[in-house]
Amino acid sequence: MGRLDIKLFISQKNTTVGDIEGNFEILKKSFKNAVSKNCDFFITPELSLTGYPAQDLLLREDFLKKINFFKKKILDLTSKTKTIFALSIPTLSNDSTFNSLLLIQSGKIVYSIQKNELPNYGVFDERRYFVSPNQVNEYFVYKKKKIQFLICEDMWSDNFFKKKSNIKLDLIIVINASPFETGKFTLRKAFAKKRVQHSECELVYINTVGSQDDLIFDGGSFFMNKYGNIILQEKFFDESEMIIDLDKKIEKIKIKKVDDLELLYRALMVGLKNYMLKNGFTFAHLGLSGGIDSALTLAILADTIESKNISSFFLPSKFSSIQSKEDAYKLSTNLGIKTTEISIEMIRKKLSSQLKPIFKNLKEDITEENIQSRLRGIILMALSNKFNSLLITTGNKSELAVGYSTLYGDMCGGYSLLKDVYKTKVFELCDWRNKNILNEFKIKKNNIIPEEIITKEPTAELRYNQKDSDILPPYKILDKILSLLIDENRSLDFTIKKGFSKNTVKKIWKMIKNSEFKRYQSSIGPKVSRMSLSADRRFPITNKFDL
Amino acid sequence: MGRLDIKLFISQKNTTVGDIEGNFEILKKSFKNAVSKNCDFFITPELSLTGYPAQDLLLREDFLKKINFFKKKILDLTSKTKTIFALSIPTLSNDSTFNSLLLIQSGKIVYSIQKNELPNYGVFDERRYFVSPNQVNEYFVYKKKKIQFLICEDMWSDNFFKKKSNIKLDLIIVINASPFETGKFTLRKAFAKKRVQHSECELVYINTVGSQDDLIFDGGSFFMNKYGNIILQEKFFDESEMIIDLDKKIEKIKIKKVDDLELLYRALMVGLKNYMLKNGFTFAHLGLSGGIDSALTLAILADTIESKNISSFFLPSKFSSIQSKEDAYKLSTNLGIKTTEISIEMIRKKLSSQLKPIFKNLKEDITEENIQSRLRGIILMALSNKFNSLLITTGNKSELAVGYSTLYGDMCGGYSLLKDVYKTKVFELCDWRNKNILNEFKIKKNNIIPEEIITKEPTAELRYNQKDSDILPPYKILDKILSLLIDENRSLDFTIKKGFSKNTVKKIWKMIKNSEFKRYQSSIGPKVSRMSLSADRRFPITNKFDL
Repeated sequence: MGRLDIKLFISQKNTTVGDIEGNFEILKKSFKNAVSKNCDFFITPELSLTGYPAQDLLLREDFLKKINFFKKKILDLTSKTKTIFALSIPTLSNDSTFNSLLLIQSGKIVYSIQKNELPNYGVFDERRYFVSPNQVNEYFVYKKKKIQFLICEDMWSDNFFKKKSNIKLDLIIVINASPFETGKFTLRKAFAKKRVQHSECELVYINTVGSQDDLIFDGGSFFMNKYGNIILQEKFFDESEMIIDLDKKIEKIKIKKVDDLELLYRALMVGLKNYMLKNGFTFAHLGLSGGIDSALTLAILADTIESKNISSFFLPSKFSSIQSKEDAYKLSTNLGIKTTEISIEMIRKKLSSQLKPIFKNLKEDITEENIQSRLRGIILMALSNKFNSLLITTGNKSELAVGYSTLYGDMCGGYSLLKDVYKTKVFELCDWRNKNILNEFKIKKNNIIPEEIITKEPTAELRYNQKDSDILPPYKILDKILSLLIDENRSLDFTIKKGFSKNTVKKIWKMIKNSEFKRYQSSIGPKVSRMSLSADRRFPITNKFDL
Repeated sequence: MGRLDIKLFISQKNTTVGDIEGNFEILKKSFKNAVSKNCDFFITPELSLTGYPAQDLLLREDFLKKINFFKKKILDLTSKTKTIFALSIPTLSNDSTFNSLLLIQSGKIVYSIQKNELPNYGVFDERRYFVSPNQVNEYFVYKKKKIQFLICEDMWSDNFFKKKSNIKLDLIIVINASPFETGKFTLRKAFAKKRVQHSECELVYINTVGSQDDLIFDGGSFFMNKYGNIILQEKFFDESEMIIDLDKKIEKIKIKKVDDLELLYRALMVGLKNYMLKNGFTFAHLGLSGGIDSALTLAILADTIESKNISSFFLPSKFSSIQSKEDAYKLSTNLGIKTTEISIEMIRKKLSSQLKPIFKNLKEDITEENIQSRLRGIILMALSNKFNSLLITTGNKSELAVGYSTLYGDMCGGYSLLKDVYKTKVFELCDWRNKNILNEFKIKKNNIIPEEIITKEPTAELRYNQKDSDILPPYKILDKILSLLIDENRSLDFTIKKGFSKNTVKKIWKMIKNSEFKRYQSSIGPKVSRMSLSADRRFPITNKFDL
């Protein structure tokens, strides 16, 4: 029916920060597909040639030089075809670096724009690297159609609506490197809808996929009609290629509504998988305590990588209960993963007796608890060193937020899988996983996490009859307070009004504040919420602000 | 001789992030001095009421509310005097936060400006918090004189010269929170000189003092004449108050030229002292290896806090030499600090034999070395827990840059004193300290660091006959390469041209890259160079960019 005689090739790819050669090869291969399908445009995600975010690599002259070298290779690549390569790269002009998009056709740059809105909040530091041209984006005319290109944040900004007269556009194409967080896709959709309704045209949203350090990119690139409905969509979390033929009437596909817990579970898998892959790890291991955090961590691990590459260790002391051991073994048996027991009891005793004269008559306290946790850390790290295996840290966000964890003890590890997952969410994820099996899972079984692990009372087992609730409020309460104080940055008054006691809130704030030094030294872990405890939240260690 | 009938009170104070009440009391007391001396202006450093940098506290509504509350108290404070309170605070307007300076007189704001140039490079993230008004600063007219106020970076910017017509000013007052680094004072002077020569007037530069987390503020506020000469200067690193009576002819005082090593040594003392003070630590301790890093660390510690609050521990294994022990004890005897020996040999052996069946027939490697380092870490952290003593990390910048250190081992600690000091600089500092005694030092002796410690070959003593040079190039070469690759961000070609072999440079780059995960988890330590390994340098852990 001849609407727009334009065929787009959407290349949702997983590239790696710094690996310009490797990324070029990925894009080149995909571009050849686009050419072979006679597409008009080959669209790549934001900064996919360099990987995103390249951070201070962008301040290196040699890095920028290499980008330029591969830009020329891409110019060459396009020389014998009409397919336009939409390449997002940093460009240098008058000592300023811009976050640019170049449209390259037949060996020439036929159009270029620079990102206007440079996010410098949350995990983003784009004003550290880039300069904004502060220009209103115009449009590119192709086959007499007006196509507007936007780079990520440029779609989100309300400045657009302020600055921009209502030009009649035919198509908007937004290229992104938009990190996953729970609920983020809904936001993206809402902003895209606002934009299409304003411009009365269709919109293509392309996102990158994979992960980089703490950021996970969930893909899910889509094509939206001018009424704000998503008509086509690429996979979440996986590489894919999609052709959008705007000349044809595109039937709305049925888009499966995705559950937030499912997305979260998959996000954690993708974060873990990519971190291992991109940092050269084949093997991973962890300490199993019999508790729920290490259980969920092992389940995700087992769903993500081959069982034969995973090992788990049960490291009991005299404070470990028989139930913990049974639960740990039951879990690992369910998952087909070997568990090795290494008792810390003998060295704990030896070390205690050696320190006794130095500690004099001081009574036992947190010191002795931390020693146990740190002995486990030593053993797990020795296994990491000896077998070149990535130690997965199993602590959750609630613990880390209040400092209910041992620095250099259970905080040891190269990747902290649940770093941004509150304890109550850990429970929900276990429950969800026990009931659900996805194609992506390596373990095709339900009920992999023993019920006992989910129902028993949380304990660190660092002394007899210890319970988390000795020190912390029940997690249902704690997590709500943390969510207010941390994720929403709320005040004492606001938090109290939500139904919590003043003393509890003040105590929690103090715990958050006093454990900042621990988080400063915590291992990296995937951001899955809007306020992770890594780059999202930059609090001073030295801080005398009391609620 | 009646030049300018204006008397300035320069209040160079040490305030604490978040402690708005406490900071208010400091400023209030100082303001009363200014009033009692009939000063026209009471000048405070940039953001001294909140402490600098307050980081994400600035994103909290309750924090901004509290600032506003104390702003009102300051308005009240000025109600019965003519002395103008120059108050630097964040102000909120239309949902945007500005880094502002308010001139408050007799209970009213008589003038205000906002910081234009918001640094967002190096350790700075000001565009995360503040909006720039993008306005050319005018001037405040007082007693018919034109006084221009600038906030920190506004003095540094060349935009000033571009935008600004050459208005004849009578005085420039620059308020700052400018972090120390070696050579920074020379830069400040140069920029101030450029400014006075452009405006043909005198300039007052006020800097804050003390430290906040990794940043050290060195004070050294000064008064510069219109020829670019410093006429008056406040102390470096200490709180002080100074009156500048512009009505009188000010005789140029003799300003002692300060040695860079002296400033560096004092900066480390100030960083340490403030970190302990502001985080509530009275006691500090460390592990003495007999090597030069822990020796310098202990010397600085002993010069800074009371010997009775310091303890040191010698933690030998079978690989520790007799000389190491002798050197360690000789040093601590020199400093009057008790050293306790706790051998790790027994638990090392126990743990090794326990891990033997798990490690099977794999030969000894870095694993066994790390175990030793981590056992020391456990013991030192246990002492920290039991005695509420701050464990000082003793590693240097060269080690940390190439990852020649054990995560959760010698990297354990709450404050990493030499984190930004290259090994060759460690030698220079030892040499300097042995020859110099300052008033500030608690230990009034020369030659406190035994010559043997300085002259012997560096070794970690984690296996027999180990030398740092087994793996690393000599430190004189290594540090030059690191300085090029890290501090100057130079390329392979540039570095090779400076006279280093391609293989060595490539190897060092790989080591830097592969140890990013360790630095990510390293303890905080004072920035003393232009490129510290903390907030200055933000490199991805996952990074495939090869030189």
